[in-house]
Amino acid sequence: MAKVLTSRSENYSQWYQDLVIKADLAENSAVRGCMVIKPYGYAIWEKMQAELDKMFKDTGHQNAYFPLFIPKSFFSKEADHVEGFAKECAVVTHYRLKNDEEKGGVVVDPDAKLEEELIIRPTSETIIWNTYKNWIQSYRDLPILLNQWANVVRWEMRTRLFLRTAEFLWQEGHTAHATEQEAIDETEKIINLYADFAEKFMAVPVIKGLKSENERFAGALETYCIEALMQDGKALQSGTSHFLGQNFAKAFDVKFANKEGKEDYVWATSWGVSTRLMGALIMAHSDDDGLVLPPKLAPYQVVIVPIYKKEEQLNAISEKVNNIVAKLKAKGISVKYDDSDNRKPGWKFAEYELKGVPVRLAIGPRDLDNGTVEVARRDTLEKNVTSIENVDEYIENLLEEIQKNIFQKAFDFRETNTVKVDTYDEFKKAVKKGGFVLAHWDGTPETEDKIKSDTKATIRCLPLKYEEEEGVCIYSGKPSKRRVIFAQAY
Amino acid sequence: MAKVLTSRSENYSQWYQDLVIKADLAENSAVRGCMVIKPYGYAIWEKMQAELDKMFKDTGHQNAYFPLFIPKSFFSKEADHVEGFAKECAVVTHYRLKNDEEKGGVVVDPDAKLEEELIIRPTSETIIWNTYKNWIQSYRDLPILLNQWANVVRWEMRTRLFLRTAEFLWQEGHTAHATEQEAIDETEKIINLYADFAEKFMAVPVIKGLKSENERFAGALETYCIEALMQDGKALQSGTSHFLGQNFAKAFDVKFANKEGKEDYVWATSWGVSTRLMGALIMAHSDDDGLVLPPKLAPYQVVIVPIYKKEEQLNAISEKVNNIVAKLKAKGISVKYDDSDNRKPGWKFAEYELKGVPVRLAIGPRDLDNGTVEVARRDTLEKNVTSIENVDEYIENLLEEIQKNIFQKAFDFRETNTVKVDTYDEFKKAVKKGGFVLAHWDGTPETEDKIKSDTKATIRCLPLKYEEEEGVCIYSGKPSKRRVIFAQAY
Repeated sequence: MAKVLTSRSENYSQWYQDLVIKADLAENSAVRGCMVIKPYGYAIWEKMQAELDKMFKDTGHQNAYFPLFIPKSFFSKEADHVEGFAKECAVVTHYRLKNDEEKGGVVVDPDAKLEEELIIRPTSETIIWNTYKNWIQSYRDLPILLNQWANVVRWEMRTRLFLRTAEFLWQEGHTAHATEQEAIDETEKIINLYADFAEKFMAVPVIKGLKSENERFAGALETYCIEALMQDGKALQSGTSHFLGQNFAKAFDVKFANKEGKEDYVWATSWGVSTRLMGALIMAHSDDDGLVLPPKLAPYQVVIVPIYKKEEQLNAISEKVNNIVAKLKAKGISVKYDDSDNRKPGWKFAEYELKGVPVRLAIGPRDLDNGTVEVARRDTLEKNVTSIENVDEYIENLLEEIQKNIFQKAFDFRETNTVKVDTYDEFKKAVKKGGFVLAHWDGTPETEDKIKSDTKATIRCLPLKYEEEEGVCIYSGKPSKRRVIFAQAY
Repeated sequence: MAKVLTSRSENYSQWYQDLVIKADLAENSAVRGCMVIKPYGYAIWEKMQAELDKMFKDTGHQNAYFPLFIPKSFFSKEADHVEGFAKECAVVTHYRLKNDEEKGGVVVDPDAKLEEELIIRPTSETIIWNTYKNWIQSYRDLPILLNQWANVVRWEMRTRLFLRTAEFLWQEGHTAHATEQEAIDETEKIINLYADFAEKFMAVPVIKGLKSENERFAGALETYCIEALMQDGKALQSGTSHFLGQNFAKAFDVKFANKEGKEDYVWATSWGVSTRLMGALIMAHSDDDGLVLPPKLAPYQVVIVPIYKKEEQLNAISEKVNNIVAKLKAKGISVKYDDSDNRKPGWKFAEYELKGVPVRLAIGPRDLDNGTVEVARRDTLEKNVTSIENVDEYIENLLEEIQKNIFQKAFDFRETNTVKVDTYDEFKKAVKKGGFVLAHWDGTPETEDKIKSDTKATIRCLPLKYEEEEGVCIYSGKPSKRRVIFAQAY
């Protein structure tokens, strides 16, 4: 069968693009930088949403919804925030079109100009803190633990499906607290939650850490992140949780009376993950044959393909299969029986490999005679013949094993591609080779900038888990007490 | 306890506004016409979404996501559609802000003007059919049965929370079919699905019907709708399903090769319900004490309030309550135990009545002695004392009864407020009184327009269920074969 994807070794970037399109995950739309998320891709995103939403609710968060539009003046209220977000964004200036009397079609009605322009939210801190002002008077109104699922727009010049698009889908949590410590605890709780989600559901190992000043969220005192390593040796920031201090409370004048009756500004956090996670999921596991999906996020975990020549063979197979399907469903396993007659089994095999279905069963007349079924696993492409009797238990165990194996493979890849270096020469070689590079750094934004312009590598994070170690900055030679993680990044 | 709401009889419109605010459902935002949906309101919307989403998937639909932006030129492609939708809408003209060197803050960068303006989607037929063009070549690619959950913007001048807002949340289904009949079947399947949802989950009785030409969706050949009657005698259109014929396929040149190998344009439907349903839910059932929620959509179905003076009493009560909570949860009943100590039971009773919690349990020391619990139902405000032993079964039955009773009450109200009239004088009196008015109509848009400007009543629908009956139009005296439903509407 002809390969439908460019291979990873040939052109990783093209492989990714091919895969997203060919596996029916997403495509570019008629609107510059905006994507259409196709049903198969959206089904994976829905599974991610469902798990995350449950995790948020289990930790006391509620969902709400705030406006798409933000008045322009709101952006100017937090000095750092405006620098980071109020630049490349979609601006609504008018609220009406009218018929074009001369050329036909419609034109913007110049009489319908807004007094103040509205910005499509690139993130919602400003509109939300403007709202919280009315909700918070006393410590009794705190904490507020809200999340919203929404679309946001950042006018990116160079876009790539899922990884960087002008419009994307995400969740953004915005919490308000009475004390600094409580806000810091919340920030950390969420980064742990994100890491659990990435590792247990996406099967993507991540490193939890703090961003350097350069990479911090505009308006945050501290940005926590999870960083994953892709197969091409580039890092992908997969989620961030920000400790915002009292910055937004001060910008929007949100004060509360504390237990002692004194007035203080409210403490804040915000945190988010987006459809970018789809990019991480795709790039972390997939191969030259297509997607490899962790069973916990696969739209269907098992596909069954009948192998037959005659109609009566199909009928006999289908009878057996219906029985298998019922048993799998009873175990909560999602399954698709593809008995469509317009495609050959070989075509179906390739199609479901491309789509990353974790387990494929094939059943033919000989299997019926022998009471067997052929089981193929997507992660290793191994095939096995097993008894049809206990196939449901077999698959239940196999799905767990696949979930673990995919994680382990990605974990081993990251371990193999993480190096410690102590000189700038070693550093440059390591960055060129790809992977996480652990090195000493003098802690200054200037050094980070210089290293970036030299090598394209940035500090992905200051890992939360680290050993104190005396050393010198690979670039400046100044003293350093710990290593940080550098990498080229998406 | 002082009433927190204006009464319905005093000022229905103010009652609604009060209720939405006081029950923490939603509020107006800093952005004109856009609302903030608060956690309690959003929790109800999430329950609606979950049920509808399941119903869509059970009928073979999948979710996807299309861009927020629509190029201006797309609107001009379908002649009727542009008249209906391309007028009052949010227009993005620029993609960048810059620092205002003179006055501080940020201003729109005049150099960042878009070549073609982008419209924030008021509905997505145009961008979706522009996409379908690339997805459909042959009958094998059909049907396409997609839905998206999204925000949309229509620049309304007079807004009301949930009922009419500039931005609102909705789902929009967009399907493509090989034959006219299949598309009509789909349109009808969905209006039946919407009616089932409204009646079984929202407990709101609806009449299924066809819109007159005047009220039809811009671009549709036929619009099916469900119409509900609110307590003030006004109708509320609660969902629509449109048979679009080949209009959008022609506008976007979407052809397919049918089974006979001939080229034909694709047949289309679209359908949607929105956060407007929240308005219907609130107005159909609630009373002067607050919300009345049907158990199937209540964020929590049961609240338990302990009545105590001393700490050890609370401990004894809590032990019993934990047992009740466990038993209720085992039956899939959602329950909140409010043992907060900063509010008196009386305050809590009023609060949960305001929030429409279907069942309230109160337990005090004497109940512990007697093995009883006080059960109050929100719909009738009746109280009963029952044995604590079987309280889980008692509540399970009670929730079903409340769901039925709420529906029946709304149904009886509608029956009482539906009249047949045969003269224009009777008609005007009936419209003034409120309710559904069944009358003969000559079938012309002109007559409908005149009646509307005279009485503010519009044709809500031509009911799908009707009896043929010879008659004359109440306005023009021309012959008519059936009655249609008139009412003033939201």
